[in-house]
Amino acid sequence: MTGFKTPLRIAGGVALASLLLALPAIAQDAAPAEEMVEAAASVAPDVVFILNTLLLLIGGFLVFWMAAGFAMVEAGMVRTKNVSMQLLKNISLFAIACLLYYLVGYNLMYPLGNWAIGSDETGGFLGAFGIAVLEAVGITADQADDISYAATSSDFFFQVMFCATAASIVSGTLAERIKIWPFLIFTVVLTGLIYPIQGSWKWGGGFLDSQFGFLDFAGSTVVHSVGGWAALAGALLLGARRGKYNADGSVNAMPGSNMPLATLGMFILWLGWFGFNGASQLAMGSVGDVADVGRIMANTNAGAVGGALAAMVLTAIIYKKVDLTFVINGALAGLVSITAEPLTPTLGAATLIGAVGGIIVVLAVPMLDKLKIDDVVGAIPVHLLAGIWGTIAVVFTNPDANLGGQLISIIIVGIFTFVVSFVIWFILKATIGLRPSAEDEDLGLDKAEVGVEAYPEFK
Amino acid sequence: MTGFKTPLRIAGGVALASLLLALPAIAQDAAPAEEMVEAAASVAPDVVFILNTLLLLIGGFLVFWMAAGFAMVEAGMVRTKNVSMQLLKNISLFAIACLLYYLVGYNLMYPLGNWAIGSDETGGFLGAFGIAVLEAVGITADQADDISYAATSSDFFFQVMFCATAASIVSGTLAERIKIWPFLIFTVVLTGLIYPIQGSWKWGGGFLDSQFGFLDFAGSTVVHSVGGWAALAGALLLGARRGKYNADGSVNAMPGSNMPLATLGMFILWLGWFGFNGASQLAMGSVGDVADVGRIMANTNAGAVGGALAAMVLTAIIYKKVDLTFVINGALAGLVSITAEPLTPTLGAATLIGAVGGIIVVLAVPMLDKLKIDDVVGAIPVHLLAGIWGTIAVVFTNPDANLGGQLISIIIVGIFTFVVSFVIWFILKATIGLRPSAEDEDLGLDKAEVGVEAYPEFK
Amino acid sequence: MTGFKTPLRIAGGVALASLLLALPAIAQDAAPAEEMVEAAASVAPDVVFILNTLLLLIGGFLVFWMAAGFAMVEAGMVRTKNVSMQLLKNISLFAIACLLYYLVGYNLMYPLGNWAIGSDETGGFLGAFGIAVLEAVGITADQADDISYAATSSDFFFQVMFCATAASIVSGTLAERIKIWPFLIFTVVLTGLIYPIQGSWKWGGGFLDSQFGFLDFAGSTVVHSVGGWAALAGALLLGARRGKYNADGSVNAMPGSNMPLATLGMFILWLGWFGFNGASQLAMGSVGDVADVGRIMANTNAGAVGGALAAMVLTAIIYKKVDLTFVINGALAGLVSITAEPLTPTLGAATLIGAVGGIIVVLAVPMLDKLKIDDVVGAIPVHLLAGIWGTIAVVFTNPDANLGGQLISIIIVGIFTFVVSFVIWFILKATIGLRPSAEDEDLGLDKAEVGVEAYPEFK
Repeated sequence: MTGFKTPLRIAGGVALASLLLALPAIAQDAAPAEEMVEAAASVAPDVVFILNTLLLLIGGFLVFWMAAGFAMVEAGMVRTKNVSMQLLKNISLFAIACLLYYLVGYNLMYPLGNWAIGSDETGGFLGAFGIAVLEAVGITADQADDISYAATSSDFFFQVMFCATAASIVSGTLAERIKIWPFLIFTVVLTGLIYPIQGSWKWGGGFLDSQFGFLDFAGSTVVHSVGGWAALAGALLLGARRGKYNADGSVNAMPGSNMPLATLGMFILWLGWFGFNGASQLAMGSVGDVADVGRIMANTNAGAVGGALAAMVLTAIIYKKVDLTFVINGALAGLVSITAEPLTPTLGAATLIGAVGGIIVVLAVPMLDKLKIDDVVGAIPVHLLAGIWGTIAVVFTNPDANLGGQLISIIIVGIFTFVVSFVIWFILKATIGLRPSAEDEDLGLDKAEVGVEAYPEFK
Repeated sequence: MTGFKTPLRIAGGVALASLLLALPAIAQDAAPAEEMVEAAASVAPDVVFILNTLLLLIGGFLVFWMAAGFAMVEAGMVRTKNVSMQLLKNISLFAIACLLYYLVGYNLMYPLGNWAIGSDETGGFLGAFGIAVLEAVGITADQADDISYAATSSDFFFQVMFCATAASIVSGTLAERIKIWPFLIFTVVLTGLIYPIQGSWKWGGGFLDSQFGFLDFAGSTVVHSVGGWAALAGALLLGARRGKYNADGSVNAMPGSNMPLATLGMFILWLGWFGFNGASQLAMGSVGDVADVGRIMANTNAGAVGGALAAMVLTAIIYKKVDLTFVINGALAGLVSITAEPLTPTLGAATLIGAVGGIIVVLAVPMLDKLKIDDVVGAIPVHLLAGIWGTIAVVFTNPDANLGGQLISIIIVGIFTFVVSFVIWFILKATIGLRPSAEDEDLGLDKAEVGVEAYPEFK
Repeated sequence: MTGFKTPLRIAGGVALASLLLALPAIAQDAAPAEEMVEAAASVAPDVVFILNTLLLLIGGFLVFWMAAGFAMVEAGMVRTKNVSMQLLKNISLFAIACLLYYLVGYNLMYPLGNWAIGSDETGGFLGAFGIAVLEAVGITADQADDISYAATSSDFFFQVMFCATAASIVSGTLAERIKIWPFLIFTVVLTGLIYPIQGSWKWGGGFLDSQFGFLDFAGSTVVHSVGGWAALAGALLLGARRGKYNADGSVNAMPGSNMPLATLGMFILWLGWFGFNGASQLAMGSVGDVADVGRIMANTNAGAVGGALAAMVLTAIIYKKVDLTFVINGALAGLVSITAEPLTPTLGAATLIGAVGGIIVVLAVPMLDKLKIDDVVGAIPVHLLAGIWGTIAVVFTNPDANLGGQLISIIIVGIFTFVVSFVIWFILKATIGLRPSAEDEDLGLDKAEVGVEAYPEFK
């Protein structure tokens, strides 16, 4: 996703070119046959619009599916007494993200030049407020021409799913010891303000895009690291689960309760990622665009493969056993790593970029434990650390990227997200409180807050 | 889905128009360049056919996926001793639905004017009998022109999945206390006769469509309430599970055995619904059609969001805890509510329509318990009550709808489905019997009838 | 899938024809209006390329999803103590398949005439070695023209998923008693050499295609029976699970631990199969192609329906109970059976072809037990036996098929795969050994090799 408006220009260019090619060929009687044939061979503007819209719709339902993936990974990685809570949070955060992105986020993120602070030229910093509006029922081709390169409805449908993805990342890290309401209130701020504001800086054509040449195709930084920073801020203020870390520095394993669910979740996320990255091309109305979508999907798969294999080999070396949870997180880290630039790498480079992501996860998880940062599902290594790595790795395969622009953008997005998130978490902690009582935590949040046990007959 | 033939006319119109535009421009040497360009900009008839067909195929596989969603929701909501039976019923009913719809249902539902009783003009009441036939392998564009606006095979593939959906609704309500064979025999009648006959009244161009101006875009009434009425008739004759209701009027909770499965099922259904509603546009061969598909998908999502959030807030208020099962059913009720008209609402209206659906579920579930109607998964509130609400709500956003036509159609479909279903259930009860023995029910149907325990090692 | 090059010729033909039709109509001033209109009505070459590519991408992500299906079926069918291992193997084998297919397999399977041994004319036997290379970023229509009928990237994305499918089949049969490393080493050979080499004989235009007129549309033999033969060879050398067969010939049931997972896996595979078969048409850029894709999807569904119903009825007759695991495997066998020819049958014929597959499974499972071949998930009946049946059944509906060519191809592919697999398994057994120690097997592979229990709290 190179910004909302870039593909408009590209796709519009294709359509215009075909019209320009066609125009003289028809107006002048003596038009050479070749030109006419070339025009006939190209894609009619309406078809471009239809195909671009279709890509966003397919991408949208695939990214929607990732919500189920997060829910299953997290439900599988927590203990049985907190499973219903984790499921509830995943449904609720998705619903809140969609509502807030409709009410505030979409216009804030894609101001189309109407910046509240800044401008496309000088650098946009804060987008416009307003609710998302879909185009009229049954628009005509002429009206569509005035709108954009694809149906607004499909763009909203696609983008709203990215907002929900960012929020999904947070819930895994903070699992098993956060009350539901502070979590949901934070989600309101994250999806209504934090995510769309920083998203506008790149994808809305804001200052990171226009001033720093920041490249982040589908969101290693804009989506994944943002979720990771927000989770990290929460984890620091929330503290670890009771009994996780001993005074002597040793760690009590609290194994996930359902590995098939976690594995299913990984496969769901992997599938959804083909839409996440593939449809971020935002266009398939030309031969070049659709071939690029194909490259992206193949590379996305290669990134996951690299991450899974690297985690498999590395855990076999370090721990003498192949740890399933690391392989799951390795694949996910590979996916995050390839997300900033899934187009330009070769299949081999994509595999290597993903492999580094997998290695990062295997090394970072024990490191976090040493720092006593309790990340229940490993979301910080997977989404934040691999997200940073993927954003840096753009420079290895895309000649348009510059390391300075990538690094400064990572830092600016990181500081903004971490600081604002920290402040929000802090206010919530100081007011309604973040943690349930020790008794409730020991009892499990399913009984304490949800009233529905996940597996009432399995104990 | 505004009837099989309506989109034929619309899409055919687009194609014809482009031909008519092209024709004079070519025949007359002095054709104005603008017209020619306009023709070149529009979508070639073959492309319209391809795109419409593609929409139905994508929609078809997404609606297929809902079969897995029903299976998972129901398997998660029943007790462990009846899980295998519930899975078995969901596979079997899907297979029976597909077979019967092929043998009888498809032609009965879409008689294309060949009514056994009635006609398109006077109002059709009973369609034609005959098996479904796909077009020849490798049809040419000319042959396709004679057939319809999309491949018959894709239309069959899409429609058969709706028939299976209607049948899926029934199995959840009657879970844990019905023998397999009477259930499957009822499914034969439902999918071979009840569903397609009433379906023909609206979508086949029958009397509800032609005489009452009934509007039901994707089936709040035609699919969901039909499943709900059939389930209600069965539940009344079948009675509650043993031990569910005490003599003093109190209710024994029989909690579902696996919340992750139920949640997964909800996500699957939510995903499938994008095809259920989105592809019911039946066409994406024009700018207007594809933009409408986008609107529909975005609104469908908003409906689910509204239902989930409303159920979340309302259960928090009423029960002081956020009940996961209500949130799941709230999202589903939101989806059912937006199904009768997912196109004309704004995103805000769609959210509100869904929210009312979620409220209905939270209020209706205890009401059914008071009436001692034992609906194991809440299918009656979700599919019947929210289906009725959604069908009425059409009048709020679609100016073509009239309240009288909506109400009378709801009533006619309801009486027909309920009465015929009741008679069938009654005959089954009087002959082979509906319920297993008390011993078998206490033992669990998995051991008694299936011979395969769902979780043999988990107790 | 009728070979990589066949659709190139067909689709190229369509595109060329439309150009040829357009050319004179434009060059000559007096071109008849009808021809011009016909050209305008047809699909522009760029659109053909885009649509074909899109089909392969949709097909690719659907077939990817089958990896999750295999993982869930197998995790549900093994005992709890080996679930994590089974999940780990399914992720790992998928990753290895993708890596090896990239490094070796793709070029070996589709040599595009560059045979190391043989030629297209005389019959190709061994393809070319080399890594898979995707086309450049942002190719133009002219460059695409030189490449093929669809983006290479999309073709790779689609084909690599088939390779992984073949490998997935093996892991189920050998579950619960094979160490991870020999299994993964075998997977390297299977996906890097065995699968692509035999695949080249048919789909790469090799000798089975050119000399024997072998027809296998989407791989009943090329994919499914290959997985089945490799699994059979492994099962013979590996032996049965400890305690499975008693000295007196009786069999100890070792029931699967999680039926909802197994059912979910079946639904996932069923969904993925719409891409497996549907996108094997390899083209949807014409009315005929897209209508064929629709036929294929409808028939694929019918095959599964036939298999499920046949297994349901037959187990009810034989065992007096309807066995869920047989219904699951019946549906899958129906899918395998219709895979060799999903296009030419009518819906009725497709249902019957699938039904025979379901019957084969019900009869073959106890037969294998009599032979003391321990096939944990029933992959040999489902993929090998139904695969052979489906390949033979092509002759009933496709007049281009000849029984001799089908049989000899089944035999050649079978002997090659079985013998090479047997040798590899034998070497592995003789060197690093295939089986864990008896203690480890009794303990369960999750504790012994993976270090992660699947359900740590459920016992």
